[in-house]
Amino acid sequence: MFKIFYEDLVIGQKETFGSYKVTREEVIDFASKYDPQPFHLDDEAAKKSVFGALCASGWHTSAMMMRMMVDHMKDKGIAGLGSPGLDGVEWKKPVFPGDILSVEGETTAKRDSASRPNIGLVKSTYTVRNQKGETVMIMRGNAMMAKRPK
Amino acid sequence: MFKIFYEDLVIGQKETFGSYKVTREEVIDFASKYDPQPFHLDDEAAKKSVFGALCASGWHTSAMMMRMMVDHMKDKGIAGLGSPGLDGVEWKKPVFPGDILSVEGETTAKRDSASRPNIGLVKSTYTVRNQKGETVMIMRGNAMMAKRPK
Repeated sequence: MFKIFYEDLVIGQKETFGSYKVTREEVIDFASKYDPQPFHLDDEAAKKSVFGALCASGWHTSAMMMRMMVDHMKDKGIAGLGSPGLDGVEWKKPVFPGDILSVEGETTAKRDSASRPNIGLVKSTYTVRNQKGETVMIMRGNAMMAKRPK
Repeated sequence: MFKIFYEDLVIGQKETFGSYKVTREEVIDFASKYDPQPFHLDDEAAKKSVFGALCASGWHTSAMMMRMMVDHMKDKGIAGLGSPGLDGVEWKKPVFPGDILSVEGETTAKRDSASRPNIGLVKSTYTVRNQKGETVMIMRGNAMMAKRPK
């Protein structure tokens, strides 16, 4: 099932993928469960906030990005084995209901795992944009990838 | 409603809060929507993964942490105005169904906003632990906070 392994990734290579329609219902559902701050739940409170209108939790934007990343990995057969963490996240602009998000991923660094000979570690930068081409989020992430079976 | 403003935060001050029971149903529900990788959905696939058993998406752990943070902010009346991003996340150990998570937050830096005189910017480190006291996640975050009204 895996087709693209650690060895296949090229530094500087970019890929664009995903098309995620942000709905008001989902923004409020996610925020109700995980980030019940007024500007993610209530139109009037959001108008008075720094965001200006009801907008998605940054963690919800991150989760929507992840869904696009996993769908892309499955489509391409990318041998992802999970992530030990992130080097940084910037939530650059609010994400509003009605926005359509997509992702650009760029491989920025790779190295062999010191402890696991069949695994490599990859650094990538993911830029999430809305339908106007505005960058709403940048995430610099780390991932474990399987090496090609010998 | 706000009681604790930017001026009240002290560098090095720590607070522990939250008690979030991780359920199998919620792990699978979150993963189905946002991170449908086999080790977050399927017991057999998870056993063969680096995690050893079905575990929560790191983004789900982040979301559960955020819920504890927002509940804590509301309890204490902390004047949080949202976040421009994170300086880093480490997912240190897998989070399993049945785990009970809590958070320790420490204020690490603060400065006035250059552009908004009524806002301050705060850096904090959040350590998420399970019921055994094991650190499962560390997040270094940035937040906007309201200054005390004059």
